[in-house]
Amino acid sequence: MTTPRTRLPDSRQSPRFAGLCTFARYPRFEDVAPDAQPVDWAVYGVPFDGGVTYRPGARFGPRAIRDASQYIKTHHLEHGVTVTDILSLADAGDAPVRPYSCEDNAKTVAQFAQSLGDSSRTKLLALGGDHSIALANLRATHARRDAGALALVHFDAHLDTVDTVWGEPYGHASPFIRAIEEDLVDPKRMITIGVRGPLNTPRDLDFARDRGVTIVTADDWRSGAGPRALADFLRRIDGAEAYCSFDIDVADPVYAPGTGTPQVGGLTSAELLTALRSLVTPAGGPGITLVGADVVEVLPDRDVSGVTALLAAQVAFELLAADAAMRARA
Amino acid sequence: MTTPRTRLPDSRQSPRFAGLCTFARYPRFEDVAPDAQPVDWAVYGVPFDGGVTYRPGARFGPRAIRDASQYIKTHHLEHGVTVTDILSLADAGDAPVRPYSCEDNAKTVAQFAQSLGDSSRTKLLALGGDHSIALANLRATHARRDAGALALVHFDAHLDTVDTVWGEPYGHASPFIRAIEEDLVDPKRMITIGVRGPLNTPRDLDFARDRGVTIVTADDWRSGAGPRALADFLRRIDGAEAYCSFDIDVADPVYAPGTGTPQVGGLTSAELLTALRSLVTPAGGPGITLVGADVVEVLPDRDVSGVTALLAAQVAFELLAADAAMRARA
Amino acid sequence: MTTPRTRLPDSRQSPRFAGLCTFARYPRFEDVAPDAQPVDWAVYGVPFDGGVTYRPGARFGPRAIRDASQYIKTHHLEHGVTVTDILSLADAGDAPVRPYSCEDNAKTVAQFAQSLGDSSRTKLLALGGDHSIALANLRATHARRDAGALALVHFDAHLDTVDTVWGEPYGHASPFIRAIEEDLVDPKRMITIGVRGPLNTPRDLDFARDRGVTIVTADDWRSGAGPRALADFLRRIDGAEAYCSFDIDVADPVYAPGTGTPQVGGLTSAELLTALRSLVTPAGGPGITLVGADVVEVLPDRDVSGVTALLAAQVAFELLAADAAMRARA
Amino acid sequence: MTTPRTRLPDSRQSPRFAGLCTFARYPRFEDVAPDAQPVDWAVYGVPFDGGVTYRPGARFGPRAIRDASQYIKTHHLEHGVTVTDILSLADAGDAPVRPYSCEDNAKTVAQFAQSLGDSSRTKLLALGGDHSIALANLRATHARRDAGALALVHFDAHLDTVDTVWGEPYGHASPFIRAIEEDLVDPKRMITIGVRGPLNTPRDLDFARDRGVTIVTADDWRSGAGPRALADFLRRIDGAEAYCSFDIDVADPVYAPGTGTPQVGGLTSAELLTALRSLVTPAGGPGITLVGADVVEVLPDRDVSGVTALLAAQVAFELLAADAAMRARA
Amino acid sequence: MTTPRTRLPDSRQSPRFAGLCTFARYPRFEDVAPDAQPVDWAVYGVPFDGGVTYRPGARFGPRAIRDASQYIKTHHLEHGVTVTDILSLADAGDAPVRPYSCEDNAKTVAQFAQSLGDSSRTKLLALGGDHSIALANLRATHARRDAGALALVHFDAHLDTVDTVWGEPYGHASPFIRAIEEDLVDPKRMITIGVRGPLNTPRDLDFARDRGVTIVTADDWRSGAGPRALADFLRRIDGAEAYCSFDIDVADPVYAPGTGTPQVGGLTSAELLTALRSLVTPAGGPGITLVGADVVEVLPDRDVSGVTALLAAQVAFELLAADAAMRARA
Amino acid sequence: MTTPRTRLPDSRQSPRFAGLCTFARYPRFEDVAPDAQPVDWAVYGVPFDGGVTYRPGARFGPRAIRDASQYIKTHHLEHGVTVTDILSLADAGDAPVRPYSCEDNAKTVAQFAQSLGDSSRTKLLALGGDHSIALANLRATHARRDAGALALVHFDAHLDTVDTVWGEPYGHASPFIRAIEEDLVDPKRMITIGVRGPLNTPRDLDFARDRGVTIVTADDWRSGAGPRALADFLRRIDGAEAYCSFDIDVADPVYAPGTGTPQVGGLTSAELLTALRSLVTPAGGPGITLVGADVVEVLPDRDVSGVTALLAAQVAFELLAADAAMRARA
Repeated sequence: MTTPRTRLPDSRQSPRFAGLCTFARYPRFEDVAPDAQPVDWAVYGVPFDGGVTYRPGARFGPRAIRDASQYIKTHHLEHGVTVTDILSLADAGDAPVRPYSCEDNAKTVAQFAQSLGDSSRTKLLALGGDHSIALANLRATHARRDAGALALVHFDAHLDTVDTVWGEPYGHASPFIRAIEEDLVDPKRMITIGVRGPLNTPRDLDFARDRGVTIVTADDWRSGAGPRALADFLRRIDGAEAYCSFDIDVADPVYAPGTGTPQVGGLTSAELLTALRSLVTPAGGPGITLVGADVVEVLPDRDVSGVTALLAAQVAFELLAADAAMRARA
Repeated sequence: MTTPRTRLPDSRQSPRFAGLCTFARYPRFEDVAPDAQPVDWAVYGVPFDGGVTYRPGARFGPRAIRDASQYIKTHHLEHGVTVTDILSLADAGDAPVRPYSCEDNAKTVAQFAQSLGDSSRTKLLALGGDHSIALANLRATHARRDAGALALVHFDAHLDTVDTVWGEPYGHASPFIRAIEEDLVDPKRMITIGVRGPLNTPRDLDFARDRGVTIVTADDWRSGAGPRALADFLRRIDGAEAYCSFDIDVADPVYAPGTGTPQVGGLTSAELLTALRSLVTPAGGPGITLVGADVVEVLPDRDVSGVTALLAAQVAFELLAADAAMRARA
Repeated sequence: MTTPRTRLPDSRQSPRFAGLCTFARYPRFEDVAPDAQPVDWAVYGVPFDGGVTYRPGARFGPRAIRDASQYIKTHHLEHGVTVTDILSLADAGDAPVRPYSCEDNAKTVAQFAQSLGDSSRTKLLALGGDHSIALANLRATHARRDAGALALVHFDAHLDTVDTVWGEPYGHASPFIRAIEEDLVDPKRMITIGVRGPLNTPRDLDFARDRGVTIVTADDWRSGAGPRALADFLRRIDGAEAYCSFDIDVADPVYAPGTGTPQVGGLTSAELLTALRSLVTPAGGPGITLVGADVVEVLPDRDVSGVTALLAAQVAFELLAADAAMRARA
Repeated sequence: MTTPRTRLPDSRQSPRFAGLCTFARYPRFEDVAPDAQPVDWAVYGVPFDGGVTYRPGARFGPRAIRDASQYIKTHHLEHGVTVTDILSLADAGDAPVRPYSCEDNAKTVAQFAQSLGDSSRTKLLALGGDHSIALANLRATHARRDAGALALVHFDAHLDTVDTVWGEPYGHASPFIRAIEEDLVDPKRMITIGVRGPLNTPRDLDFARDRGVTIVTADDWRSGAGPRALADFLRRIDGAEAYCSFDIDVADPVYAPGTGTPQVGGLTSAELLTALRSLVTPAGGPGITLVGADVVEVLPDRDVSGVTALLAAQVAFELLAADAAMRARA
Repeated sequence: MTTPRTRLPDSRQSPRFAGLCTFARYPRFEDVAPDAQPVDWAVYGVPFDGGVTYRPGARFGPRAIRDASQYIKTHHLEHGVTVTDILSLADAGDAPVRPYSCEDNAKTVAQFAQSLGDSSRTKLLALGGDHSIALANLRATHARRDAGALALVHFDAHLDTVDTVWGEPYGHASPFIRAIEEDLVDPKRMITIGVRGPLNTPRDLDFARDRGVTIVTADDWRSGAGPRALADFLRRIDGAEAYCSFDIDVADPVYAPGTGTPQVGGLTSAELLTALRSLVTPAGGPGITLVGADVVEVLPDRDVSGVTALLAAQVAFELLAADAAMRARA
Repeated sequence: MTTPRTRLPDSRQSPRFAGLCTFARYPRFEDVAPDAQPVDWAVYGVPFDGGVTYRPGARFGPRAIRDASQYIKTHHLEHGVTVTDILSLADAGDAPVRPYSCEDNAKTVAQFAQSLGDSSRTKLLALGGDHSIALANLRATHARRDAGALALVHFDAHLDTVDTVWGEPYGHASPFIRAIEEDLVDPKRMITIGVRGPLNTPRDLDFARDRGVTIVTADDWRSGAGPRALADFLRRIDGAEAYCSFDIDVADPVYAPGTGTPQVGGLTSAELLTALRSLVTPAGGPGITLVGADVVEVLPDRDVSGVTALLAAQVAFELLAADAAMRARA
């Protein structure tokens, strides 16, 4: 039996209900053995919710996701890969934050993320925190790749391309308008899945539509048009480096009650797992080249039965597994 | 930019987490500006649960729905209409209630409802409260139309046509037997969607079946027979004036834990939104002529994560949006 | 009107919110009238969670299921049978337990179960407790039948065929490896529905696969392959005596948050009811010959809105109804 | 070792988390052995909340109190008596109720209570339900004693002597005005402990004051005046037959969040235990002659951490223990 | 019977569980009848939590306090005054807020508050919101009095005189250092009750001590030294115009779990009511001249049983009652 | 400014809601700088609940206490010491556990604890877990001191000197009978504070009484006899090396709902803090020589508002602060 790339606690000594909580029991970033360096993915938290427009509290999201992740095991049955055999994974703790300023926070977080691991080999998975933190992780991801504007697979009930809210251009409704303006993301290679109404105004979709973003509503997903649009999208971007931003409110409120702006009519966990697993397209398709990701908007105080954090932890694992599966295919 | 028919608080001054709670932040009935009068729909609460047979507490339903509705925006993406541009909407507060008598309460509430707005133009949307209050709103709605017995689209886990429970003929299991007896509703133009077992006795369906009510079980809905039956029904009633009564327990208990008689195997939020949106049939079909509605049986004390009230608020909005969409089509 | 086989409290005297809680208000085992003896099914609880590997608390499961079952009525609408007319049912209370030893507990519980009713006519439905108790109920069921190893229909997120955990061979991860070793269950006539990852290792499935167990993943179920596999399975076992073991974690965590090892991506209540109802195959098929069953892993402390216990109670009722429907068909 | 008067389940077989729930695991009334008959106290539930003026749900109180009572042991350390050695105790299940009428319900419940055990020797302890049920238990208690109007020790945040609310004379605000009118209770030998504001009007206290009821506010209790008043009261009634009515809202909302009309500033559990234990006055004093009691207004849906039901169960046990201690002293 | 100064809804029509929620069912500010104008106290909410250092969510505090206040009646038993007979009271809704800036928010809120009612006769009671909003209400209160720096009675677990946190001088740890610097408050006539450790540093108390603030720790209060210090303080300020700022975290976490920075060892509800009632000193003492107040830091998402909001509503009522009692004494 | 003995995260970078959770943000044991070694106290968790007799779940206690401890600051106001200036403190993570055997677990945990730090200078503070783990920590503490049997200050609702439960001698009802038998604890220098009824039998106290344990009931504490008994005890043991075992159920259920065997009538947080602070007796008294401690029986699944874990974290801090205060006095 070969050594796995990621070493986990001995479960005979330390059951899953024991020990300090790192994401899925992965080693702390500073404890990774030399032969497992540089890590393939650095998972880190961003305990920031200074950019919200309704319910705050996502600053406690990273802790909740880590707690819920303790039961995440290593072998992805559906992809047929043991993720920790293929990837060296670590939990880099929480980024420093600037609670009172979205703009400062985005800079501080990006700087921290940029410092993690090997800039050409270590990928960044951020656990939010509100969606404004996606901009930080996108900046850091973009900075360490040299592929130009990234493709973006975006799961969300909302487009998050509002220019400003109450004068704030860096809040959680605006990460992607900023990311497009900063050329971090190529809107023509961006797909947003799960959008649904009601909206403040029909003009909320204009920015994205005008720039060529592919918008898949929740109704589209359920009708079958959405899965086809995603498959088309993957073919179209043809293996280009892609970032995945996953706002937990893409799920229906019963799957994600613990979020700040829940919207009825979202996707189920089964639909979301199907979507995420389809990123690793079957033989013949190019599949995704995932170079960074985030899972955001988990608000534990409203997550009374813990299902939101559990789903978020699973989604984070699915993203890592997608990368592992693509490598296994190579 | 033209003045919207319904004026909402300035969100730069008063974010969605601020202000006294009216339904979806609509103006209080008494504050509606003259140029928006008479209102098209008066939304009002009926804090009554004196008719329940199992868990009480729906008297606090109207407050919970109003709280949950604060994040309901105005533009219905799927119908493509901005509801508040088309309709003048207002929250008329809560009806007076008679907590100790279903019969007195139904009279008192109907009298209050009947007094609201312009009797030929203002439609009534009641927020429950237990299902016994539907009789009151049906009486008031019927009284202000001159169309004879109304068609009825009824979403519910139960038929609610039990004659009496513990000697009480006006409880929450009986509104529609009474409405049919009073000629408020035409049973041949009534459809009940979402019924499922177990039942107390197979005879529970006899009254409705004998009078020609179209019964669509939850299993029927999922098999595809239900949506077809609803489409047939809409064709059959051919634009007749219709009332919609929506008992939140039509949804599965995970979508509506906060209700008094939850029943496993109900519909999902996606299925319910699809059903409601299908009332506005595509070009060629007659679509619904909605003249009154209720959303009932929200029991906040059992709604620990708030998803029930959130769904109820969205359903109420969908009903208003259906009317707006029909008007926009005209 | 003939006397029903199972006599229930008079609901005019004792509403569903009144009275000491027995399962679905069935009589206590010791109170069953002579003309209803021997009972067809003895329902009993096993308040034991000494075999868990993650969250404990399922020892309180039987009480929670009984509480939630108070609203379970008698007529199964979809099968068209009044269960209590056909079957004599009773609640035999809780088995004695041995909280500190899985092995002793399995023996003690089996002995108690074996003592209930008529050994050739009374069937056993155990309410858990953790899944380790299935072994006890299987032993008692097997002992009172003379049909050799039983067929097994197993609903679960996990295969539960792990050899030992922390040295313990009788814990909740191991009931079926033991049952197969003890020839209580024929692995070639065993189907496990709802399995999903992540797993600790790809080898977790080896034991079951090597012995011919039919494994249906949650993804298989949703793709349509699963329902077909179950239909094939039923045809293949051709009416052989079968046991059904139902671990509530087969359901998605939103349907069963109150369980010890929740796993994202499980089945919905609608999918589970469909599966259970399909055990009574339509005319032409053999249908199931159910001779024993359990519903396990309900953990009330995590079941904040009560939906898990409600689902478990409904599943238990469905199992009884399946037997009643098969008898009605005979 | 002599046989205890009340026989409990063998805890080696059936731990406190096992078995059908009767109050404190006492035998069901119908299962009491002949040598333990007639029982000294029949404990029974009254699942009725048709008399409430604010939050309903106390119909589920009896079940919650029974659940919480499973950990109530038998030896009262502070009085130094083993309650089950001295008293024969049984759980008589729930009274039949009339959910839609306070007046009918009071009659029905009184009739049931009156039928329990030996009318001269069996005392009645009712578990509510809303406070309106006290009238029923008082009627039944009075009917089986021949001591004239009873003395009354009343713990409550409210006096409950309002004439009518919304026209209803038998609701939960009115049991004691009715009891005094019916000569069940002698107001000059009645003490109410724990009253506090705000009140609807200063006249709310007039009825009680005018008739000579001793009123001890929560502030009085804390200042020391209350305990002295209670001691005086006990001396004054000099061993007269007394009933104790305990509304859980006498406790501060943090000790009893699960109640319908919580009022800030109530007594602590320590203060309440001290008060109850002082009913068994030290040598030289007459002590109480308890002939009936109730514990009411437990509303489980608001009792999220279960402390209210736990306190109610303990209070019920304290009342039984007070009787046991008085008998032990005799 | 004379007309009360504050007119409440007719409870025969609209029970306490009915109607749009204003504080204690007082009229909306804009609905006050001419003969009740100018109002004596304008109660208003400040849904702002942009200044917190730990748990956010107090922006939903005003709604929660209003909900909890529906059961607040009018007659203060302990002071013997019917508050609504003496005072004209109104709910002025929520102040406009600036969610992203403590400094802007304080200005905006102060401006709103300053605009309410008659600047010389209407007093301001703000419901928070985090403690940073006290500065706004103090500014508005100070501006409409001409008494120079105000006396301050401050209930809190923390002194809230930290200069800056993360560079922010207007956050919830700093209102009183700012208020002292702006000469709104006279530190020599300021008393802080309920302070307790642990602290970040012993120097946290220096600013207040150096300027002569009277500091009463929670231990002091319980030892009896605190009540004496408060009595001395009242004598010393001799009826000077005083403001009362009440941070709900002064209470022990069991009394106020719903707050952002709970600290073990706080005061009980009884101790707090005693303290508040002692502001109306017995005959001979000067008593307080209350000219403004706030009740802050209620965080509903952590207030699972609602006791925090209930306590906050009662405290707000006690403050109004103190003013009424002083006027009654005059 | 001198370097503190314990270095904490920079709160400008990492606010209290950020970062991996160690107890009170103390460094991980393996990260302690050389100049802070050996640590004075190693805090570690024992996620074990295999010894419970009623509600399980305390295996998640250590995580909950660490989460709740994030707001524990460093300066103990009442003792006037900055704990982290005086003591080098570290979080050693969780001990390995043996979930299926109390006896094995006690050995495994003791071995782990014994291995921590410098055996003559590092003291051990264990966070439970059920009370059976106290035996392990006592063994390890005893092994590293050479003072013979330790004095014991024991806070608990129960004596925990039951010989066996269901045949198990090492469960949570038995740690101190075992510790006395093993000569780890001197019963004549043992005090148990907070005991209260009901008990299973009056003989439950015999073992402890016969061996000279000082028993202080909850009633004793409140009457003033308890504090005197504790002062006497401290004088009597005269500075002997003492261990403190703190079962959170010593607190009343409203202060500690999250525990497995809650008992009404416990102490308040104020009473407990007073007791703990009195261990550092005023000048003239010997004070305590604390050489080891535990805080046990926190059951997060029942701790819905988090107050139990918060109290436990504060108690753990008080114990460290007591040692720091004694050192500061030296």
